[in-house]
Amino acid sequence: MILTVTLNTALDVTYRVPRLAPNSVNRVESVHQRAGGKGVNVARVLRTVGQDALVTGFAGGPTGAALRADLDAAGVPHDLVAINGDTRRTVTVVSDSGTTVLNEPGPSIADAEWTDFLATYSKLAQDADIVVLSGSLPPGLPRDAYAQLITKAGVPTILDTAGDPLLAALPARPHLIKPNIDELIDATKLTDPFDAAAALRAAGAQTVVASLGPAGLLAVTGDGTWRAAPPQALPGNPTGAGDACVAALAAGLMAGTPWPVLVREAVALSAAAVLSSVAGDVDIRTFGRLLEGMHAHADR
Amino acid sequence: MILTVTLNTALDVTYRVPRLAPNSVNRVESVHQRAGGKGVNVARVLRTVGQDALVTGFAGGPTGAALRADLDAAGVPHDLVAINGDTRRTVTVVSDSGTTVLNEPGPSIADAEWTDFLATYSKLAQDADIVVLSGSLPPGLPRDAYAQLITKAGVPTILDTAGDPLLAALPARPHLIKPNIDELIDATKLTDPFDAAAALRAAGAQTVVASLGPAGLLAVTGDGTWRAAPPQALPGNPTGAGDACVAALAAGLMAGTPWPVLVREAVALSAAAVLSSVAGDVDIRTFGRLLEGMHAHADR
Repeated sequence: MILTVTLNTALDVTYRVPRLAPNSVNRVESVHQRAGGKGVNVARVLRTVGQDALVTGFAGGPTGAALRADLDAAGVPHDLVAINGDTRRTVTVVSDSGTTVLNEPGPSIADAEWTDFLATYSKLAQDADIVVLSGSLPPGLPRDAYAQLITKAGVPTILDTAGDPLLAALPARPHLIKPNIDELIDATKLTDPFDAAAALRAAGAQTVVASLGPAGLLAVTGDGTWRAAPPQALPGNPTGAGDACVAALAAGLMAGTPWPVLVREAVALSAAAVLSSVAGDVDIRTFGRLLEGMHAHADR
Repeated sequence: MILTVTLNTALDVTYRVPRLAPNSVNRVESVHQRAGGKGVNVARVLRTVGQDALVTGFAGGPTGAALRADLDAAGVPHDLVAINGDTRRTVTVVSDSGTTVLNEPGPSIADAEWTDFLATYSKLAQDADIVVLSGSLPPGLPRDAYAQLITKAGVPTILDTAGDPLLAALPARPHLIKPNIDELIDATKLTDPFDAAAALRAAGAQTVVASLGPAGLLAVTGDGTWRAAPPQALPGNPTGAGDACVAALAAGLMAGTPWPVLVREAVALSAAAVLSSVAGDVDIRTFGRLLEGMHAHADR
C-alpha cells in the first residue's frame, strides 16, 4: 500500500465563466468541487493505475466534511486527522481565455493536532510500502515537519514540496524528491539542472527526479542519470501532471522497476494527466500510447 | 416587525489579494465570510437603526448551515426554510486595483420546497408590519414567485428586484418598488426616469423609488414626486447602498414618515452604506451628518 500525505488538503472548487471580467460582477455558469491537495491527486492516479493507496492529512469544519464525503464518493480510502479549523478551498476560475486560481491560506494547525497526526501517521506507515509526502505546509506546523515524517516513516519516502519545507527536509534523507525546474533553481540558486540536482543530493536527497516541463524528466540517482521526454509538446492542463509523475514514481519504486523504464512511465503518466481537464485524472489510453513510442537515455 | 425575504440567499465570501492576476495562481491573504443576499443586508441595516427585523428565505447544505450560524452570531433573527441543495456562495476578490465578484447560480428549489416556503411565509407575514422582498429568484421558482408573495402578504410590500421577476410581480400591485437606473431602463426600455417610473406605476407598482447613483433618489408616489441627492459624490463601496435605501424606506413607511423626510433619510442611509466597506453595514454617524445638510424637493 502507498500512503499519501497531504498536510494542506483543500476542497478544489472550479467555476466556469464565459470570460473573467476583473473589477466586475461575473455570473458563474457552473460549480464543481472535489477533494484536492497534491497527495489526494497522487492517490487518485495510483488507484486509476491499479495501485492500493491511502490518503492521510488533516480535515476540519464543513469544508473538511465535504472533502471526506467526496473521497468516499470517489472510493478513495482515507484516514484524515480531525482539526478544529475549517479546511481551505481553492477556487479555479476557468474561462475561454485562461485559468485563474485563488488559493486560500488554510487554517492554522494547533500543536496538539500535529501530535495527533504524528500518532496516526506512525500507525498508518507501518502498513505502507512507500510514503508519498506532497505539497506545502499549512500555517502552524514546524518547518521541519517533513523531516519528522521522513524519519518516522520506516519505509522509502517520496517528497514533492518546495522552498523552505524542502530544504528543511533534506537532512532526514528522503528517498526521492521531485522538484520542477523552478523549484530546483529556487532551492539551489543554480540554473543548470544537473548541478542543482547534485547539490540537493549532497544536501541529503538520495534521488532527485526533476520535472522540466515539455523537456520531460531528469532522474539523478545513485545508479546513474537518465532522461526521457514526451515525443511532442502536449497542449492541455499542466495542473496535476506533477502529481501523476509522483504516482508513477511511487508505483515504480514499489515494483522495483529499473530506472530506464521508470522514467518513461513517469513521463507518459504525466503527459496523460496534461491531456485530462481535471487534476488527479489521467487518460490511461494516452499513457499506453505514449509509453510505446518513447525511449529513455542515460545522460552525462 | 419588518419581514425581509431573500429567496436567493448566499454566503458572501471575501478574498483579499494584493493584486488579482488573471490566468495565474493567486495567493489569498485573508478570507472572511458572512451571511448575505440582499434581504439579509436589509435586515442588518434595519437592526442597526433600531428596527425589529426577521430574515426568511431558503438555506441548505453545509453552506446554509454556515449562513445560519453567522446570522446567529450577528444576532439577526431568522426563520429560513430548509432545502436539499447547498446554499450558494458569492466570492468577492478585493485588491488594491479593484473588486471582482463571482456569483454562483445557487441550487434549484424543488416544488415541494417552494410549497414549504409559502406556508412559512404566510405564518411569518401575519406578525409583520411590512414585507421586504429582495433580490433575484433562484433556479426552479415560478416566474411569478414575487406576485404570489405580494398577494399573500396582507401588509404593504417593498420589492427590490429586476428584469423578468420584477415585471411578473407588477400585476400583484406591490406597494413600493426600488429599481436602480439601469433596472428602470431595462424593465421599460425608456431612458427618462420620470417616464419609466410612470410606466411601472401604470403596470401596477403603487410607488416607484428609483436610485440614480450619485444623483440620489427619485420617488414617484400617488401623492407627488420628490427628489433628494447626497451633498457630494461619495467614494466607497456601492454594494449594499441599495439595501440600505430599502431599509430606510421600510422603516419610514412603517413610521408613516412624510415623503420629503423619507427620501432624505433613504439617501442619507444609502450614503452611509457607501462609506462602509461591507454590504449590510452602515456608518450611523455619517447618516446623521448627511441628513442634517440635505433637502428634498418636489419635482415635476
